[in-house]
Amino acid sequence: MASVEFIKDLCTPALVIDLDKVKRNAEGMRERFQKLGVQLRPHMKTHKTLECADIMTGGSRRCIVVSTLAEASFYADNGYDDILYAYPLPFDKVERCAELSERLSLFHIVVDNRFALQELKKRPLKQGKVWKVWMKLDCDNGRAGVPHSDPAALKLAQEVSDTAGVELTGIYAHCGNTYACQGEEQIKAVAQETTTITLQFMEKLKAAGIHTPKSSIGSTPSCSHPVPDMAMLSEVHPGNYVFYDVQQSLIGSCRLEDVAVRVLTRVIGHYPHRNQLLVDCGWTALSHDGGGRLPTGYAIIEGHPELKLLSMTQEHGRVEPISGKLDFKQFPLGSPLTLMPYHACATAMMHPVYFVHSNGKIIDTWKPTRGW
Amino acid sequence: MASVEFIKDLCTPALVIDLDKVKRNAEGMRERFQKLGVQLRPHMKTHKTLECADIMTGGSRRCIVVSTLAEASFYADNGYDDILYAYPLPFDKVERCAELSERLSLFHIVVDNRFALQELKKRPLKQGKVWKVWMKLDCDNGRAGVPHSDPAALKLAQEVSDTAGVELTGIYAHCGNTYACQGEEQIKAVAQETTTITLQFMEKLKAAGIHTPKSSIGSTPSCSHPVPDMAMLSEVHPGNYVFYDVQQSLIGSCRLEDVAVRVLTRVIGHYPHRNQLLVDCGWTALSHDGGGRLPTGYAIIEGHPELKLLSMTQEHGRVEPISGKLDFKQFPLGSPLTLMPYHACATAMMHPVYFVHSNGKIIDTWKPTRGW
Repeated sequence: MASVEFIKDLCTPALVIDLDKVKRNAEGMRERFQKLGVQLRPHMKTHKTLECADIMTGGSRRCIVVSTLAEASFYADNGYDDILYAYPLPFDKVERCAELSERLSLFHIVVDNRFALQELKKRPLKQGKVWKVWMKLDCDNGRAGVPHSDPAALKLAQEVSDTAGVELTGIYAHCGNTYACQGEEQIKAVAQETTTITLQFMEKLKAAGIHTPKSSIGSTPSCSHPVPDMAMLSEVHPGNYVFYDVQQSLIGSCRLEDVAVRVLTRVIGHYPHRNQLLVDCGWTALSHDGGGRLPTGYAIIEGHPELKLLSMTQEHGRVEPISGKLDFKQFPLGSPLTLMPYHACATAMMHPVYFVHSNGKIIDTWKPTRGW
Repeated sequence: MASVEFIKDLCTPALVIDLDKVKRNAEGMRERFQKLGVQLRPHMKTHKTLECADIMTGGSRRCIVVSTLAEASFYADNGYDDILYAYPLPFDKVERCAELSERLSLFHIVVDNRFALQELKKRPLKQGKVWKVWMKLDCDNGRAGVPHSDPAALKLAQEVSDTAGVELTGIYAHCGNTYACQGEEQIKAVAQETTTITLQFMEKLKAAGIHTPKSSIGSTPSCSHPVPDMAMLSEVHPGNYVFYDVQQSLIGSCRLEDVAVRVLTRVIGHYPHRNQLLVDCGWTALSHDGGGRLPTGYAIIEGHPELKLLSMTQEHGRVEPISGKLDFKQFPLGSPLTLMPYHACATAMMHPVYFVHSNGKIIDTWKPTRGW
């Protein structure tokens, strides 16, 4: 594969990344929050590569969010610092978190319950360090976090703040409920609500005499359409925006032409008796994310709105026309098709290497880290 | 992780494999076809590891099926030979197939159309070798293959047979339609049908004076419950059986206690206000396969038929009771839960390492190959 110069010549299936779009998406997000005076702390979970992290951080190699300790170690090993592990502290990983806290100048963890705090007390940090703890607040997203309206939230913040060897570094909220939105207006409503709730909680902390320097909210939809009040937050932490995907375009976070990621596939079979062709992209190359519920099935087939990726097995994809007869002459065996994935995070996860191009010319390959 | 002795101490999520069950499943399949006098050519796509391949081949390192050229190269590099690449010849990979054909004593490819044959003619093999070609016959499975009732099937076989530098090595059919079965009787009906159609096609070839030594059908359901007529086939090529999974148990291929694969996860959050707990298994560790349509959602939570894995995001799983109130005291933060995956192939694909145990004691780690 070393000799392949253009994406059209790649063996398929292959994940291809448009570097110009990646840079544009990254720059857009940086500018957006520079203007608002809010620190951007990009999330690495979508790509998990060093090269894309360098683009998202503008080369600073500082101030990122990760979803796994494998990512945290990978970035730490490559000179990154100020890493926030945005995950409810898993009790089996306290020692690994402690080691990262002692090794880096800034390693942040997240808690949403007092038992986690007990675990931290059992493992005081060496070298005069303190645990940097963000408390996760659930602003009606319904995943991790203490519900914002629950008195336990203030109580936990107080307890973290009062614990020796532990610092209440910030309040962290993920507005994943923006994923149910359609259009900028709905996104902004959720962004506003999450911001308001978070800022009100900061006020409550202040009123209770609890010192908490930072607040952070995030999600690609809300950070793609920030509301002015977000200027009062310390940080934001979106991630998917660097690639975007069909889902984000449907939510209204981006235009379809902003999507920087594709799966290149090829026609491997013609089956006129059932009006279908096969492509060499199964769920190992695309994932099942989205459940095939798009009008075009599991993906958008670029340039062919008349086609549907109906179903996939491990290495095969069945393509048929949305209606009418398939014109097989248009799709000779071996000819390429380009899929826009429903969910870039899920699709990227399936690939051990990403082929990075500019105008179709391959200029780099990126290798993600995997595991936990 | 090197010091971890028992699976209960693994950092989660982790894919754990019960070696005793793997050996039992492999032995059962070997014995079944030894008795029938049929060559077992096991499929590697489920696990893609060297160690499991050694178990499936009984150490012979011969006679396997693969779904990708990455697998083919991986096994060839590790001393495997007689490898069948069970995929409609992709035109972008002819050169790689040629190299494997020249390098191994036996490398088989599959075609289901005459254009593929043209591609082979353009690349004659060196060293006096000939292309070993299996023709894929679609016995009402509806994926790849020439439909068995189509006169084009016999015509293509004739054309392959008549082509210099190419050998018609066999007829290959995948009875993936067994996946729609429920119970042994239905499985056997499909197995019988596929066998009958394949054997009838072999007769047609003979009548037309076309020499074809081999016939092969396969799928884990049909090979778990073979019909006597399968004794007249040359080979079978099941794969998933070495692990089995919830789907196979529902089809009727195996008992639930035969399933050799689990995802170990831990409780990371209690959310009584919504009657849910979170576990550290998202779709990165389990896949979305099955679509959550089990009564217990995306998996079976071992020992807890009252629980449902309702939904997953990238690294989180939401668990709730099927009915009634969750007794959170039963599931302390940090406590382990064990998931039986719906589809072992899809779940294994998400893991860069498998933890292999016997009675809970870790005795090996297996690393799969990935990519294409």
